[in-house]
Amino acid sequence: MKQFNLALTPQKISTQLGGELILKNEVELTNVAELPEADDKSVCFYENHKYLHDLKDSKSGFIFVPKDFDIDLKPDANLLLIDKPYIHFIMLVKTWLELCSPKSQGNISGTAIISGSAKLGRNITICNNVLISDNVIIGDNTKIYSNCVINENVKIGSNCRIHPNTTIYEDTVIKNNVSIFAGCVIGADGFGYLFHDGIQNKIPQVGNVIIEDNVEIGANTTIDRAAIGSTIIRNGTKIDNLVQIGHNCKIGRNSILCSQVGLAGSTEIGDIVYLAGQVGVAGHLKIDDEAMIGAQSGVSGSIPKRAKYFGTPAIDAGLKKRIIASEKKIPEIVKYYNKINKKQKSK
Amino acid sequence: MKQFNLALTPQKISTQLGGELILKNEVELTNVAELPEADDKSVCFYENHKYLHDLKDSKSGFIFVPKDFDIDLKPDANLLLIDKPYIHFIMLVKTWLELCSPKSQGNISGTAIISGSAKLGRNITICNNVLISDNVIIGDNTKIYSNCVINENVKIGSNCRIHPNTTIYEDTVIKNNVSIFAGCVIGADGFGYLFHDGIQNKIPQVGNVIIEDNVEIGANTTIDRAAIGSTIIRNGTKIDNLVQIGHNCKIGRNSILCSQVGLAGSTEIGDIVYLAGQVGVAGHLKIDDEAMIGAQSGVSGSIPKRAKYFGTPAIDAGLKKRIIASEKKIPEIVKYYNKINKKQKSK
Amino acid sequence: MKQFNLALTPQKISTQLGGELILKNEVELTNVAELPEADDKSVCFYENHKYLHDLKDSKSGFIFVPKDFDIDLKPDANLLLIDKPYIHFIMLVKTWLELCSPKSQGNISGTAIISGSAKLGRNITICNNVLISDNVIIGDNTKIYSNCVINENVKIGSNCRIHPNTTIYEDTVIKNNVSIFAGCVIGADGFGYLFHDGIQNKIPQVGNVIIEDNVEIGANTTIDRAAIGSTIIRNGTKIDNLVQIGHNCKIGRNSILCSQVGLAGSTEIGDIVYLAGQVGVAGHLKIDDEAMIGAQSGVSGSIPKRAKYFGTPAIDAGLKKRIIASEKKIPEIVKYYNKINKKQKSK
Repeated sequence: MKQFNLALTPQKISTQLGGELILKNEVELTNVAELPEADDKSVCFYENHKYLHDLKDSKSGFIFVPKDFDIDLKPDANLLLIDKPYIHFIMLVKTWLELCSPKSQGNISGTAIISGSAKLGRNITICNNVLISDNVIIGDNTKIYSNCVINENVKIGSNCRIHPNTTIYEDTVIKNNVSIFAGCVIGADGFGYLFHDGIQNKIPQVGNVIIEDNVEIGANTTIDRAAIGSTIIRNGTKIDNLVQIGHNCKIGRNSILCSQVGLAGSTEIGDIVYLAGQVGVAGHLKIDDEAMIGAQSGVSGSIPKRAKYFGTPAIDAGLKKRIIASEKKIPEIVKYYNKINKKQKSK
Repeated sequence: MKQFNLALTPQKISTQLGGELILKNEVELTNVAELPEADDKSVCFYENHKYLHDLKDSKSGFIFVPKDFDIDLKPDANLLLIDKPYIHFIMLVKTWLELCSPKSQGNISGTAIISGSAKLGRNITICNNVLISDNVIIGDNTKIYSNCVINENVKIGSNCRIHPNTTIYEDTVIKNNVSIFAGCVIGADGFGYLFHDGIQNKIPQVGNVIIEDNVEIGANTTIDRAAIGSTIIRNGTKIDNLVQIGHNCKIGRNSILCSQVGLAGSTEIGDIVYLAGQVGVAGHLKIDDEAMIGAQSGVSGSIPKRAKYFGTPAIDAGLKKRIIASEKKIPEIVKYYNKINKKQKSK
Repeated sequence: MKQFNLALTPQKISTQLGGELILKNEVELTNVAELPEADDKSVCFYENHKYLHDLKDSKSGFIFVPKDFDIDLKPDANLLLIDKPYIHFIMLVKTWLELCSPKSQGNISGTAIISGSAKLGRNITICNNVLISDNVIIGDNTKIYSNCVINENVKIGSNCRIHPNTTIYEDTVIKNNVSIFAGCVIGADGFGYLFHDGIQNKIPQVGNVIIEDNVEIGANTTIDRAAIGSTIIRNGTKIDNLVQIGHNCKIGRNSILCSQVGLAGSTEIGDIVYLAGQVGVAGHLKIDDEAMIGAQSGVSGSIPKRAKYFGTPAIDAGLKKRIIASEKKIPEIVKYYNKINKKQKSK
């Protein structure tokens, strides 16, 4: 459960969120929890009848339930009958987190090493052992956590969070409200070689990476710099852990790349595209807006707008599912075919 | 080969392990090695006749061989005829490592930054540039290697090893005898967004990660904190490199997750489950005890106890193998089908 | 675009590279760029008519074009008509980078912690907060970037680049001209356990990792130490980001391992082998010289010289493609088969 250092009451919460309050006793709430682990200071939510048993057993101090909830199912509990309990629960958590987060004035650790040519905005926090190299520019209210390495000419906007042990290579541009979780590597060389005279000759990688506003990047993800030009992640796209983005890729707005996705070089992803876990995409392709690609798919050709694709190689998801449903018959059909084939040969 | 700073003799080794000693010359042993690289100070083992050639050529000073070994195959060598040579060889290596490992009194580097509110047990070692944040608790004999970042309220038990450049986020609980290899990220935000009003809205991730006793976690692996509640890895489970464990997953006891496995959120894995390399598991599923999933499988439904599954989507491994064996006939069958189909149409 | 701090002229470039110079105005060149982002100080190349539109719109100051280029397509531009424009462009970038890179005399940061028993060559650079442990040996002109951890007895040759936040475990041997990008973990324990008495018993991992000359290793890649013996990467092999190489693997010369490839233990890869993205290879196999394995393939058996394989399990790529092309017919064939089967049963 998540403890907050500020207590709320059911009355205060219902005043803010609306809904119908059913109060059986006075309570001070200090945490959010799942129903089974909750105590009398916990706020919880209940929406899916699959968890009715958890609801009945829960010691939660205050539970968000649907408007049409039968209150006899939990007669002694403090309840908030409200439209979309889960969404309102999330809204509460966000507000509560904000109420508890201290307004930072910024702080620069004495163990950080900061080039004299770096330009820092206001209220910046730079934690222990961070390296800020020459000509780096950092915007207001941004926080760089411990052991990050920020190379030459990197620009980071306002309200960003660069988590521990992350490396950001030279010339990377990061705009505003970007979160990069721990262990990421942004802007390392793209993977390009020409095989000539029996050896792999490195193609210089002299482009950069641009990450626009409101992007979030999961732990240990790698985004390579372009060979020339830029690798670009556009506004609002969210990238999970251990994802690989090859050089010169362009990712559109508000797309979702789940964990362990890999994009080869120069591929374009549109807006609001969904790539499920472990999807691989070959190079120089275009996945158009609002396309959805099923988990583990291998995309080997461009994909039209709003298409749903699945499989390796990825094809229309409906067709793929029909093929999968039919596959179990294949051994039997092959046996049958071999039999009639033998008959015909023996004729 | 692994050099030890303490020499052993064949006599000493056979006294400890048992077996029948055949000694051709006096020798001081100081390393363990594979047969081809061995020198006269090496201990080796031989068990599989595939390596008979390596055995004959080896300069090893002392070789563990099976009880029924024909000693004329290696007439001049010092041999230990013993049940299960490989297992006994591993036992020797373990003992030898322990004999050579100095009893540490613990040591706190002057470059580490440790909050005044952290509570440290006895004989703790904290290496260079480690950050230990507020309210962290660390048990006896635990070692935190260089450049690790340990956030607020983390609890780490006794006899743990947290290897370099690892980040452990706030509220994580790690019990005893846990090893976490370099570059891991434990407790970063889970990947959860609600698409609303054209943008991806972050669902706050306020749960934590709990890692129980005797768990081992490979390099650069990521384990996300729960949205609410806990992501849990139970006793004795071993996780390889570059594995992704999504928020709210629960992994049972003594399971094996090979490299590059990815688990989406809220999935449950039972005890003694084996997930081979690059397996992906969708969210909200249950893989029951002692199930085995073949490499690269994509698990899209729950899997019963002791089942062996394979493929994407994962199905019974025996059926999948029969389908694979039959697949090569598909082009021929399609051709045949098209022919008879054309005939029927032309009738 | 990549800015250089040294200007070149078209005359100087054509003198060095050859080709036919067509000069419309005097220009000082200070960057390389893609055609769309170029300005009048940019050098660009044009080779593929797919980008003719970009060429026509480009403001580039100097463009490499093929020998048979119709100069009326870009009448006002400074052009270099040359054999293989892209290759010559790459050669220019390499030369330009070298001209601009300062000759370093080496530099050891005061924040680095270096054991008294380490042996350092000439012109070595060791950046902030690096740890160099006992008995480490480092060759001339090698650069170790910030926050790297180099454990006991590691040997690193000359002209190597070890990028930030990388961990290199004890006994690893790295030869000359090796680049290891940020966040790599080299030499962590291999993943080996024996299931016995209901628990997973760790097999000690006491071998090491050997990386030969001219190897390049991408960001956040992990290469495990051998159980005994060595995990070996031979001359000139290039490894992309987030790759996993299991214990005791041997990789040959000048091979290419694309991103997210995973090799289980003890597998051998030959020379000039190409493993596309997300390929998985089971343990104890041999992939022979010049074999090519398609993306996401799962290799479950050894593969002969020069073979092209694809799929899970990987089979001859030609056959696999025929199977894939036929697969779409499967649902129809199954339907047909079920129909005739029912008829026969009902007879």
